[in-house]
This record gives sequence, structure tokens and C-alpha cells, in this order.
Amino acid sequence: MPELTVNSQRLNATLEALGRIGETPEGMQRIAFSPADVEGRHYVMELMRQAGLSVRIDHAGNIIARRGGREERAPAIAMGSHVDTVPNGGKYDGALGVLGAIEAVRALNDQGTVTRHPVEVLVFTNEEGTSFHRWLLGSRAMAGLWEPADFNAVDSEGVGIAERLKAIGGDLAQVGEARRRRGELHTYLELHIEQGPVLYQSGISIGVVSGITGRVVFQVGIKGAANHAGTTPMDARQDALLAASRLTLAVNTIVTQEETCRVGTVGTVVVKPNAVNVIPGEVELGIEFRDIDMGRVGDAERRLNEVAPEIAAATGTEIEVRRLELGQSCPIGNRIQGVVAEAARRLRLSSRTVPSGAGHDAQAMAAIAEAGMVFVPSVAGISHSPREYTSPEDCTNGASVLLNALLIMDEE
Amino acid sequence: MPELTVNSQRLNATLEALGRIGETPEGMQRIAFSPADVEGRHYVMELMRQAGLSVRIDHAGNIIARRGGREERAPAIAMGSHVDTVPNGGKYDGALGVLGAIEAVRALNDQGTVTRHPVEVLVFTNEEGTSFHRWLLGSRAMAGLWEPADFNAVDSEGVGIAERLKAIGGDLAQVGEARRRRGELHTYLELHIEQGPVLYQSGISIGVVSGITGRVVFQVGIKGAANHAGTTPMDARQDALLAASRLTLAVNTIVTQEETCRVGTVGTVVVKPNAVNVIPGEVELGIEFRDIDMGRVGDAERRLNEVAPEIAAATGTEIEVRRLELGQSCPIGNRIQGVVAEAARRLRLSSRTVPSGAGHDAQAMAAIAEAGMVFVPSVAGISHSPREYTSPEDCTNGASVLLNALLIMDEE
Repeated sequence: MPELTVNSQRLNATLEALGRIGETPEGMQRIAFSPADVEGRHYVMELMRQAGLSVRIDHAGNIIARRGGREERAPAIAMGSHVDTVPNGGKYDGALGVLGAIEAVRALNDQGTVTRHPVEVLVFTNEEGTSFHRWLLGSRAMAGLWEPADFNAVDSEGVGIAERLKAIGGDLAQVGEARRRRGELHTYLELHIEQGPVLYQSGISIGVVSGITGRVVFQVGIKGAANHAGTTPMDARQDALLAASRLTLAVNTIVTQEETCRVGTVGTVVVKPNAVNVIPGEVELGIEFRDIDMGRVGDAERRLNEVAPEIAAATGTEIEVRRLELGQSCPIGNRIQGVVAEAARRLRLSSRTVPSGAGHDAQAMAAIAEAGMVFVPSVAGISHSPREYTSPEDCTNGASVLLNALLIMDEE
Repeated sequence: MPELTVNSQRLNATLEALGRIGETPEGMQRIAFSPADVEGRHYVMELMRQAGLSVRIDHAGNIIARRGGREERAPAIAMGSHVDTVPNGGKYDGALGVLGAIEAVRALNDQGTVTRHPVEVLVFTNEEGTSFHRWLLGSRAMAGLWEPADFNAVDSEGVGIAERLKAIGGDLAQVGEARRRRGELHTYLELHIEQGPVLYQSGISIGVVSGITGRVVFQVGIKGAANHAGTTPMDARQDALLAASRLTLAVNTIVTQEETCRVGTVGTVVVKPNAVNVIPGEVELGIEFRDIDMGRVGDAERRLNEVAPEIAAATGTEIEVRRLELGQSCPIGNRIQGVVAEAARRLRLSSRTVPSGAGHDAQAMAAIAEAGMVFVPSVAGISHSPREYTSPEDCTNGASVLLNALLIMDEE
């Protein structure tokens, strides 16, 4: 079959247009359910209709746009992402996956290709979870993964989720019907910026995502004794910050030298009383480890639980390690990884496998369909920032890989 | 001469009485200039008058109570401390020095002793500096050490220092006249709880204070790069908290292993953005070093300035060390240390030299008189807390040392 590439100019014009909706000098403010989000959704739906797609909104507010196939009862090949952003966010996170999918459909239209499978473009509600602090809200509804807290969510303005969903065409009372059965979708394929530096630093065009990372989060409480910094001799101290510093370095060592798991971070520190003339009596740390291999995440957790009492004993403090969250990883199958790699090869684009360190709608969709992801480089690895940037060429490459992956799967 | 001890029951009754003025379940609230502070001052002045002292208030609000001597023109031997407390403070810090001095005078009265030198009991205004954030306010006025900021000070209620001084009998317009000339006072001797654990832990009754510590305070700014904790590989990070943890351990090493100076503390940490899924991009640390030997304080500062760029280079961060404060130490002369040790020996009390890690009115008074200090044990080293405690026996021992030191100096 001939190599098919998307229309770069057309794709990037839509990225620019969507990037102006909710744009501010401090970055994108297209928060889910906000007027800018609604405007962005309308812009995208208009593009979908121009591309000849039939557009509907499910009870979770997800936009579902469909292109018929030669076998209308065959499971659909779905592509998509989200249009909501974090506060002060960028123009590519989410937007590229949606607009790349629409552009892939337009390229099929240009070539007059009718696929065997129907094709769907999906736009998921509130992926970022900025509203309601409930993330992957739309994709979890479609995958049947809502939790009780989703139904009762109230946002920072005191408005409940029922009212917010209604405003975008959803219906909380019937949200269960947004769930789709396993077998309805052949595949869910998501194009996304990497949000990390691996592709950018290695100069490679396409990331074949090997899995979406699992994550364990701990809150660690350290109790020492707050005492006068001038009068308490060094050997009579129980300095909670000294223990916290040792633990922070240990988290790094567990990952980098012991090579238990891929990444580990101490992101939060709260010190009490936090006065320069008082020895810190209490410190709380927020710690996380991530890996696609949950066994490795478990290894890191085991080591954390081993070193914490050692440090407590050495510093005369008490350390309590509490696990706050455990998010399972989402492996991505070899078959769909192979499809993405083959699509890149056909386009003569360099590719490598990369893990996804961030979460995506694909991890929810993996519960009901074979899910895959295509990454393109993020300049300097920056995302969730107005400095987020992916070049027009890389955006085009990603959409072309989406198109070719779709065609490869359709031919199988 | 015969051994002279004070009246333990009488001393501890006054400690209890003053300890009820401003007492709350969360500790003493006798903040300078507050109604409780004013009530405490009136209680103390009444005790002074009952002890036959002539009482006056200088323009800085300091209480000056005087007992005549055989040679009325000889310089006075002064003793004292303060009656204000920190918020949630204890019953002994300051109070013991004032009430111990009054009890020493009462013991002289009981024995019918007329000293050669006049004797003064001094109560200094706002030693703690809780009001106006200007500490040692009264003693610095007496020693001629006021700074421009003292004159312009406005408290948290928006009231200026003129109004506050007036309410306790002072006068800002004439505060310069509170200054006393070198030679007016023979000695200034202050009894105080140690506020540290050295005497308590070693079971020794009396601390012969060898000097009041110097202190240098730094604000250290560390700049790394805030990035996604899931997507940024370990080898692509500039983690400001990792640098801060190494610096915190280095401060400890500089003091404990390199033995540059007596104590060093990292007391404050502020992390940005302080989110568990974001690598810390910025950290600010508050660091201090203390020693009586300012050369050793300087050694610690030099080492801090050496290790900071090493840690910055190793972690890919920028570290800026800014010196915020430099408080000179106050050495205490061998003669007055010997007097205190001899007083303890006469009373058959164990004694050892100890540095004062906290600041005291004595360090201001050292500018115009030979200053000395007597420490008694603080249980568990705790102070500035409702758990602050010194036993009645230790309080009595301290006042008896004050009395005997006074007599030794008077005989010389």
C-alpha cells in the first residue's frame, strides 16, 4: 500500500485555532466545564462535522464522532484524547490527540479510503481532573470505572457534578449508560506529547509507548523533638529534618543506585515549627515511586519500609510510612506496540519504546479495549506549562503514525 | 564568713505567685506591655518595696530598685532579668532572675548585712522581643545600644513604641537618658534557667556561664527545575530538594564531624511547588551557626560557602547563600566566672562552666559593666514552653549563689 501522510498545514492550523481558545499570557486555562472548555468542545465538534463524522455526546459528556466502515457491525477503531487543560497549561497536551485523530480522518477522506472497521474519534470529559479533583472522568465512565466519589463530586464553586455534566450535554442520572461493552471497540489509540525529555534528548521522532506507569504515593510523618537551636547540644538532638534529609537521599538511592524502579521523588516537605532558631520537631514528606512493572514499585516500597526505621534509629526520631495511593500500571500489548512501530517504519520515522510516566485516558480505556499510545517529543520535556511545545513537524509525524497504524490494523 | 543561703520557701512562693499572673492552660502569656506584664511588674515592685528597696522606672520602662551601701558613691552591684514571657512560655525564664535577686536582698536584710557597694535589682523591658520584634529593648537602652528601628517600632496592633513605653512609666522622647555610664555599675549578675539540657543531664547544680553565644543566620536559596515526577528520568533532573537535603546533612557534618563550631541548625524549609507529583524546583533553607568563639562561627560560615557550590554542581542546581544576621558573642570574664564558681563551692554545690546558647539581657549590659551569669538546670532542657520546669531546690541554689557571689565581690 502507498505511504499515507496527513496534511501538516491543516493539522497545525487547527492546533493554533484551538490553542487560542482559553489562551492567556500565563498559559492555557481551558479547565474542564469552563466556558473556554465548552468553546473548545464546540470548535472540535464543528471540525468533526466538516470531516463528515456523525457526532454525539454520551451521558458522561464525552464526544463520540463516528465514520462508517465497510463492515458497519465490526468493532470500531477509536482514536482520541481530551481538550481540557490544567491551569496555566499548554497547547498540545490532549489537543494533539484529538486534532491528530480528526486530521487522520480527513486524510482518509482525501484519499477516498473507506476502512473495513468503523472509525471513532473520542474526546473525553475532564481528563486532567482539575475540576472536582476527579481525573479521567469521561474515560472512566466509558470504561465502567466510576467510583462512588465521582457521583457525589462537588467543585470548588460548590456546584455538583450533575449540573456540570448537564451543561455539556451529559446526564448524571444516566451516566452508567456511557459505559461501553468490551468488544464494541477494536482498539483505542491515543496520540500524545511525551511530557518528558526522552524523545527530545535522543532526537527520536516517535515513541512507541510500552505501558502507562503504576504509582505508589506515601505520606511519611517524622517526629523528633523541637528544641532551642542555640542551647541544645548536637548530641542531645532529635532533629526531624535531619531524618527527613536522610530519607530524601535514601529515596534517590533506592531508585538510582539500587535500581529498584524507574523514578522516585520526594515532592512535598512540611516542617514544624519552621523557625530558624528551633530544631525541627516534626516533618511530613510526600513520596512517590513509579514503574510500569508493579513488582519493581513493590521493591521500592519494601526498601523504603526498610530504610525508614534505620534512619529513625540513627536520628532518635519516629518515622511512620503511610501508603496513600496505589495506582496500578497499564501494560500495553506487544501487538499494538508492533503496529505503532511498523507505522513509524513505513513513514521512515525513527522510533523507540518509551514508558508513559504520566497517566492518560488510554489507561482507563484499556479496561474495555486494546489500548495503545503514540508519543511525540516535548521540547525540553516540559508540559503543564505555557512553555510546553512540540514542533509542527513532530505533530504531523504523530498524526501520520496514527493514520498508518489505523490502516495497518484495518488491513489485518 | 558564714555560709549564707536564701529562704527557699519565700523564694518559691514568689515564683508561684508571679507564675499565676498571665498563666493559661497553654502556658504563660505575660507578653511585654500586655495587662499581665503590667500586673507582673506591679507585683515585683511591691515585693521590692517590702524588701526596703527604693524603686524607680527609667525612661525605657526598666524597673530599678536600689539598696544603699556603706559607700554610697561606690558603683552598685546589680542583679536582675525580666518578667515578660514569650507566648505560651514558662514560669522560670526571666522570673527566676528577678525574684532570685529580690530574695538575695531579703536574705541580706534577714542577716542585717549592709554591703559596702549599693545593690540594685533590675527588671528590663521586653527582653523577649515578642512585642515589636525588638528584643533586649530595656537592657539595650540602658547600655546605649538602641538602633533607629527601636525608635520607630510599631507593634502588631499598630501601636507605636512611644505609647507602649508611656503606659509602663517610660518616655520615648527621653529614652536616651535611660543610658548609664560605664563605671556606674560594678557588675551585672543574672541568674537564669539554662534553657538547655547540659546541667540537667549531667546532674550538676550550678552553671558558671563562660559566655553568651554569637550567632550567624543564613537564608539559602536553591534553584533547580520543577518537572513532572512521573515523566522526568532520574538522570535528567535538577531536584532542588535533593540539593537541600545534602546541604542540611552538610551543615550537621560541618558542626559534628569537622567540629568547626558548637551548634548548627537548619530550622526552616520552604519547597516550591510542594506537590507530590512535581520535582521540587525551588527550596529555601534557614540556617544558623552559634559559638562563643566568633572565629569558629566564621569557620562554619566558610565551610558552608565551600560546600554549597560543590552540592550545586553535583545536583545541577544553583545555590545562593545570603547572610541575614550576625550577632557577636559576649565573652564573660574569668574574674566573674571565678566569683560564681567560688560562691557555688562555698555552698557545696557542684558546678561546671557552660556556654549560654540563648541571648540574655547580660549581653547588652556587658557594654557598660562587667557582666556574669549563673545557670540552674532546666528539666529536659525545655524552655519557652508550659513544660519549662526548674525544681524549687535548684531555684533556691541559684539565688543562694547570687547572694554569695554578691558578698564575695563586695568583700574584694
